[in-house]
Amino acid sequence: MSARHGAAVVVHSGGPSPVLNASLAGAIAESRKHTEISAIYGARFGAKGLVEGDFVDISGCDAGLLQALARTPGSAIGCSRRKIEPEEYSGIIGELERRSVRYLFYTGGNGSMETALALHRMVRGAGREINVIGIPKTIDNDIAGTDHTPGYASCARYFAHVARDVGADNRALPPPVEIIEVLGRTTGWVVAATALARHAGDDPPHLIYFPENGLSLEQLCADVERVYRRLGRCQVAVCEGQHDETGGWFDAELNNLPGQRGVLPANMGQLLARLVWSATGLRTRAEKPGLAGRSCAPLISETDCTESWRCGEAAVRAALAGRSGEMVAIRRVAGPAYRSEMETVPLEEIAGMERQFPAEWMSAEHNDVTPAFVEWAQPLVGEVPPHPRPWAL
Amino acid sequence: MSARHGAAVVVHSGGPSPVLNASLAGAIAESRKHTEISAIYGARFGAKGLVEGDFVDISGCDAGLLQALARTPGSAIGCSRRKIEPEEYSGIIGELERRSVRYLFYTGGNGSMETALALHRMVRGAGREINVIGIPKTIDNDIAGTDHTPGYASCARYFAHVARDVGADNRALPPPVEIIEVLGRTTGWVVAATALARHAGDDPPHLIYFPENGLSLEQLCADVERVYRRLGRCQVAVCEGQHDETGGWFDAELNNLPGQRGVLPANMGQLLARLVWSATGLRTRAEKPGLAGRSCAPLISETDCTESWRCGEAAVRAALAGRSGEMVAIRRVAGPAYRSEMETVPLEEIAGMERQFPAEWMSAEHNDVTPAFVEWAQPLVGEVPPHPRPWAL
Repeated sequence: MSARHGAAVVVHSGGPSPVLNASLAGAIAESRKHTEISAIYGARFGAKGLVEGDFVDISGCDAGLLQALARTPGSAIGCSRRKIEPEEYSGIIGELERRSVRYLFYTGGNGSMETALALHRMVRGAGREINVIGIPKTIDNDIAGTDHTPGYASCARYFAHVARDVGADNRALPPPVEIIEVLGRTTGWVVAATALARHAGDDPPHLIYFPENGLSLEQLCADVERVYRRLGRCQVAVCEGQHDETGGWFDAELNNLPGQRGVLPANMGQLLARLVWSATGLRTRAEKPGLAGRSCAPLISETDCTESWRCGEAAVRAALAGRSGEMVAIRRVAGPAYRSEMETVPLEEIAGMERQFPAEWMSAEHNDVTPAFVEWAQPLVGEVPPHPRPWAL
Repeated sequence: MSARHGAAVVVHSGGPSPVLNASLAGAIAESRKHTEISAIYGARFGAKGLVEGDFVDISGCDAGLLQALARTPGSAIGCSRRKIEPEEYSGIIGELERRSVRYLFYTGGNGSMETALALHRMVRGAGREINVIGIPKTIDNDIAGTDHTPGYASCARYFAHVARDVGADNRALPPPVEIIEVLGRTTGWVVAATALARHAGDDPPHLIYFPENGLSLEQLCADVERVYRRLGRCQVAVCEGQHDETGGWFDAELNNLPGQRGVLPANMGQLLARLVWSATGLRTRAEKPGLAGRSCAPLISETDCTESWRCGEAAVRAALAGRSGEMVAIRRVAGPAYRSEMETVPLEEIAGMERQFPAEWMSAEHNDVTPAFVEWAQPLVGEVPPHPRPWAL
């Protein structure tokens, strides 16, 4: 099928990442190269803009601005967690037709890819020629069918730096136990990457837990006490959504009002700090960088930024090649140096599926990663150089 | 008084800063230039090392390592919050004499300068020739007698970046209210510097509070609702030690065990988030970078790093010139471009005094800074460049 002349729309769904705008910039840059694309629009605030027909023309954007945009956290067109209701699809398709949109780029995580798949099916069902391509985006790295997701490596890089730098502070003036709360609701990809902070044998983090596994307070305290006996300090990296052994959240305060349904614990690190202190008698404090971890411009991974841009470019090329109902994916090319290629995978193979952190990359005690994971993550995250430690303390 | 031949000791007191090691490196570098200084030692873990005579020889450290050390958070010789008991001073002086120490550099905040002054007086009272010089260090910027303190600008730079970057995330996907918990127990210097994140009129932070003033929940909620009506979002920067209107801490969980004396609230941001959400119905979340704010190597201010180094150098020169009982201070030199000079001030004029954030740099409502503060802080903190915002949202 040859490319049809028409407009393109980019949608940002779910939470931002440090390099979400890089895939937007890549899509804009690639669109410019193809006369088939008459204009490119952004849906303002994701699904909301799509449903309401609230589009912003993002065609006019010079090369320097695109480069700067690629290193800007957040989303220049706005995101949304809004769901699209079944009865809203026909209105969306009608609006896209009125604007002569032929290319729709839906950017998001595994849940958003379900929406992209639904849009693709509705378009096809209505006999319309609009090609729908998913662009992966999530710091959580939990989309199937791709080696990793744009956004992950920058977030991982941020938290590895926090583990390293707070560790340097702790080495000088230890709170005996330091808990770093890391982004991650249900998968341990980001918390795992704090391991990249380590260079010497006693470098933090000393314990890494995974929300894929239930963690009992008993195990946590026993692990902490063992590390403390060895080093006189212990840094723990734990997800905001770490589960206890019952599948609950240690009776955490939830990020909502009393009576509302819980969405996520609001204070996992601080809660565990209090519990560990009470149980072990070791003074414990917690840090929660929170959204700083998915927005820190100075710690964007160069590989991540470049790959996110390339995902945007690849999405445009796939749509122009007549593909629809597919998501751009990153394939790691075997070889001595890290290299990746963009490909596409059918949305129906990956939509709504959550890719958990692999059990084989967890230590036997489920409190650390294996060297194989570090080897996998290192080229994505980039160097987290060691601090000099000239004198034994 | 001509310089006496002997050894030098550096002590790090209180919490680390991102550039505490820079003043250490500067002191080592300057010591090397003077044959009067036979060796330079670090007291391991601050007052503890001093009391126990636990010193590490830090003389052998090449120029490249000193440069790297200057950009390493924490303390390469270890810090301590330990107090020196009155009966311990004579033992300290005896140990210094045994090691032929003639120069003692006590690095810390206003409380540590009291210890430095006591050491100076005890030495003089005992008729010993050991020159005691204070080196200022605190992210809190609350030492009197100096334009600002080494460590402040880097911590300020960190939190200004957090306000900017989390603000970009919030603009794309607003939690209606976002609270950034900033380091600062009793003074508002660091929280004030989040204002350097702003470029456009609607840039965050939208509200900045000072622990020097009591803040009522009623004022906080009224301020938040006013900003929310204007922008649809509101970012609040608040200190970990923000006081309520009674001088208390909003019934915050304290960073200690039940029954122990409270040292500091452990969850001020999260507590205020819950209170604001309950009172206004606006969904509110909080981030607490905590110790990441005083240890982030990638966001060290160049001015801060250089000035901290120069404070170390100036301390050595002052001690060699026969001065004692004084602290190095930074003087801002009037002129079109920022420039500073190092001088010394008598410890008895500044020891134990807390320099609060000036009322004249607070807005009339005590919920923002004035432009004069931003002008004062900008050359210290360095550029916090705006993110591109090509399209209206």
